[in-house]
Amino acid sequence: MSLNSAGPIDSALMDDLVAASRILADHGVLDAWGHVSIRHPGDANRYLLSRARAPALVTADDIVEFDLDSNPIDQRDRRVFLERFIHGEVYRARPDVNAVVHSHSPAVIPFSVTQVPLRPIAHIAAFLVDGVPVFDIRDAGIERGMLVVNSAQGKALAGTLGDKPVALLRGHGNVVVGPDVRRAVLRAIYTEVNARQLATALTFDSPITYIAADEAQEAVRLDDAWEVWKRDAMKE
Amino acid sequence: MSLNSAGPIDSALMDDLVAASRILADHGVLDAWGHVSIRHPGDANRYLLSRARAPALVTADDIVEFDLDSNPIDQRDRRVFLERFIHGEVYRARPDVNAVVHSHSPAVIPFSVTQVPLRPIAHIAAFLVDGVPVFDIRDAGIERGMLVVNSAQGKALAGTLGDKPVALLRGHGNVVVGPDVRRAVLRAIYTEVNARQLATALTFDSPITYIAADEAQEAVRLDDAWEVWKRDAMKE
Amino acid sequence: MSLNSAGPIDSALMDDLVAASRILADHGVLDAWGHVSIRHPGDANRYLLSRARAPALVTADDIVEFDLDSNPIDQRDRRVFLERFIHGEVYRARPDVNAVVHSHSPAVIPFSVTQVPLRPIAHIAAFLVDGVPVFDIRDAGIERGMLVVNSAQGKALAGTLGDKPVALLRGHGNVVVGPDVRRAVLRAIYTEVNARQLATALTFDSPITYIAADEAQEAVRLDDAWEVWKRDAMKE
Amino acid sequence: MSLNSAGPIDSALMDDLVAASRILADHGVLDAWGHVSIRHPGDANRYLLSRARAPALVTADDIVEFDLDSNPIDQRDRRVFLERFIHGEVYRARPDVNAVVHSHSPAVIPFSVTQVPLRPIAHIAAFLVDGVPVFDIRDAGIERGMLVVNSAQGKALAGTLGDKPVALLRGHGNVVVGPDVRRAVLRAIYTEVNARQLATALTFDSPITYIAADEAQEAVRLDDAWEVWKRDAMKE
Repeated sequence: MSLNSAGPIDSALMDDLVAASRILADHGVLDAWGHVSIRHPGDANRYLLSRARAPALVTADDIVEFDLDSNPIDQRDRRVFLERFIHGEVYRARPDVNAVVHSHSPAVIPFSVTQVPLRPIAHIAAFLVDGVPVFDIRDAGIERGMLVVNSAQGKALAGTLGDKPVALLRGHGNVVVGPDVRRAVLRAIYTEVNARQLATALTFDSPITYIAADEAQEAVRLDDAWEVWKRDAMKE
Repeated sequence: MSLNSAGPIDSALMDDLVAASRILADHGVLDAWGHVSIRHPGDANRYLLSRARAPALVTADDIVEFDLDSNPIDQRDRRVFLERFIHGEVYRARPDVNAVVHSHSPAVIPFSVTQVPLRPIAHIAAFLVDGVPVFDIRDAGIERGMLVVNSAQGKALAGTLGDKPVALLRGHGNVVVGPDVRRAVLRAIYTEVNARQLATALTFDSPITYIAADEAQEAVRLDDAWEVWKRDAMKE
Repeated sequence: MSLNSAGPIDSALMDDLVAASRILADHGVLDAWGHVSIRHPGDANRYLLSRARAPALVTADDIVEFDLDSNPIDQRDRRVFLERFIHGEVYRARPDVNAVVHSHSPAVIPFSVTQVPLRPIAHIAAFLVDGVPVFDIRDAGIERGMLVVNSAQGKALAGTLGDKPVALLRGHGNVVVGPDVRRAVLRAIYTEVNARQLATALTFDSPITYIAADEAQEAVRLDDAWEVWKRDAMKE
Repeated sequence: MSLNSAGPIDSALMDDLVAASRILADHGVLDAWGHVSIRHPGDANRYLLSRARAPALVTADDIVEFDLDSNPIDQRDRRVFLERFIHGEVYRARPDVNAVVHSHSPAVIPFSVTQVPLRPIAHIAAFLVDGVPVFDIRDAGIERGMLVVNSAQGKALAGTLGDKPVALLRGHGNVVVGPDVRRAVLRAIYTEVNARQLATALTFDSPITYIAADEAQEAVRLDDAWEVWKRDAMKE
């Protein structure tokens, strides 16, 4: 561990971070390139993210510590994600956020490239009730295709996200945040599920009743869901 | 076992209740939060439902006995489902019902939030022939988001269900009932399958021939289906 | 073996019949209730079909011999399928047919209940080029819901099928035939695949180029496909 | 090895070729009949393709060497693919190409039979930015249904492909090429994924923002994706 490290984290939290990566891959939310991070519980200016590695393969040994400028504290020979700036800038802008997911969640893509807003129709996706902003990398300047590869682009994305739990990235995917990693995982999964369901409802050509503000409440307990998701995801 | 218990049930029936939970999870009808119950065969005023636990993980040891007010008879330290009132009030209102499923069946959500009625187009879903009412929690008063968390809400839902086998819960899922747990499972699975098929047929912009009353008959035998569903679901 | 039996069949053919059942279940063409049969190679007036049993569970011991009136030759205590008349009457009407599949193939249902014809857009489904007739049980008289449960209904269905390889059963599924069991399995799988693809193409609101008569040719070799399908299906 | 062979290839490259076949089958891009080849690294006028065999079953022992006229160098008793001419003629026409996939990629079929162009809406499919031409076998003369079974048809297809990475074959599938086999596999997978996503976006009846030329860049690293894809595909 580097002298500059904010120190080791609790093994249960590390287990959750690793499981988060595997669970999101198992649910098809993360493909071979997405990533999930947590804010360091001992230092709000640090976050933990795997080295560049397919999410389904991540283990505790792959986790690297970063500062909010997204510099690795102890990189050694480990390759890091080009898009780590998404994490750093969201943590900087959002003190309430302790976990960040960046995914290519397949069902959100159609909502990211059209004028049709992604809104919640299923209660487990009620966290989307205040709207899902869409970030267009073009507005932040193209640097490397559609990728968010520097702090300025990361800041622009964090600005689009504002105080919301989810923002879409046009033609790319989304960023999903939460107060803890389990909540961020739940949100990432049900953003995908709700997108599929809404796409079907939109073909009905009938008025849609969306979840209303007073109906929105993250009521579901996560302990049991986490247990079964983790069991399924950790099977090889 | 509590002194107040209506007594143990036959192990074959207990096996069916556990398998029901696993089968519905295996078919994607139950996610990490749905539940399935049976009426106690020895006391019509009692029902059996797992403690709050992901359906894919339920075992016989997780089953708790409840009265029709949805009080657990012998809770000990076991957490119970907030939405158990769905079960209690349906059993109270429907003497013909011996099994109840509450699910977030993904394909029914679009039908629950639009004016498009869920009607049967496939003969195994012929049990839907008399219509599928939609319950809106708002009409029963919002207490905890979209959840059914007290007897009044449960009674209102049972009232919407009426004498039907299935009711949708707007933006939430459904409740499916049957004369026995195998029949309730069949109905829950084919409500989902028929919803998917109807959603596709609706995109064709062509008149649809629904199953007619004189064509509706629950003719399929369940023994063989149960055997293969159970085999698949009990594999880890 | 009964004195009246047309005799045992080659074990390789029996293996193919059992594999056919498993393969069609593995591909989601057969649910817990469909069935596949072959004509007896030693007696054109006999066919072989499993006892009433979920297709994914069928073994050689489950195979029963029937005459073309669909009477079992040696039933013993074995329950037989109510809808065996589909097989008997198709074999009677179609000397060129040596294998019959009856399925609830999920993607064909929308085509069976609307006026949209199922036509081939993918070359492996080119066998559909002469059209897919739709049988309506109502025209044959309702006896037991939508089921084909007697010779008269079976004859009516065979009449609708005519000289085609596939007919749909309105609100029910399909019947698929072939010169041998491997060809019937191929056709059943690609009827389902083509139905899914055509449903998507229909949403494009653009003229569709269907496979033309001179493009239709069952060119694909089946040996390799059969080997991999069987390997996948026989895994438990 | 034949005296005429261009010689053995590096075992790591052979591993990649075998894995490519398995990975594309595992992702549902290749069904029981598609194929993937590489140009011989030691002789630009030779390519390596499995004998006729379901892609999910291919091993190193199945690989056969061909010249650009698609004659096998050492066929022995091995059956070869009828459509090998696709590979030979693409290698002849495209010196930049070192890997070719021919698939029945299911989601591209609707785009191949309508006037709706397949264009990229997701950044991983940005390689499609210059358009996806559609080849119609009818324009090259029908020889054996829709199949490409001789050099003239192969040349016509290569002509339609031009300098693009992907061409569709009307009512048949596609051909996907790349500078190496991993890149060709990535392109084949994300052509399929993007086709699914675009089909959904098209139902929204809203203007679609496609990936623009200056946004297109094959930025994703493949090492990690390959590792996880191969792990999943090589599991039996």
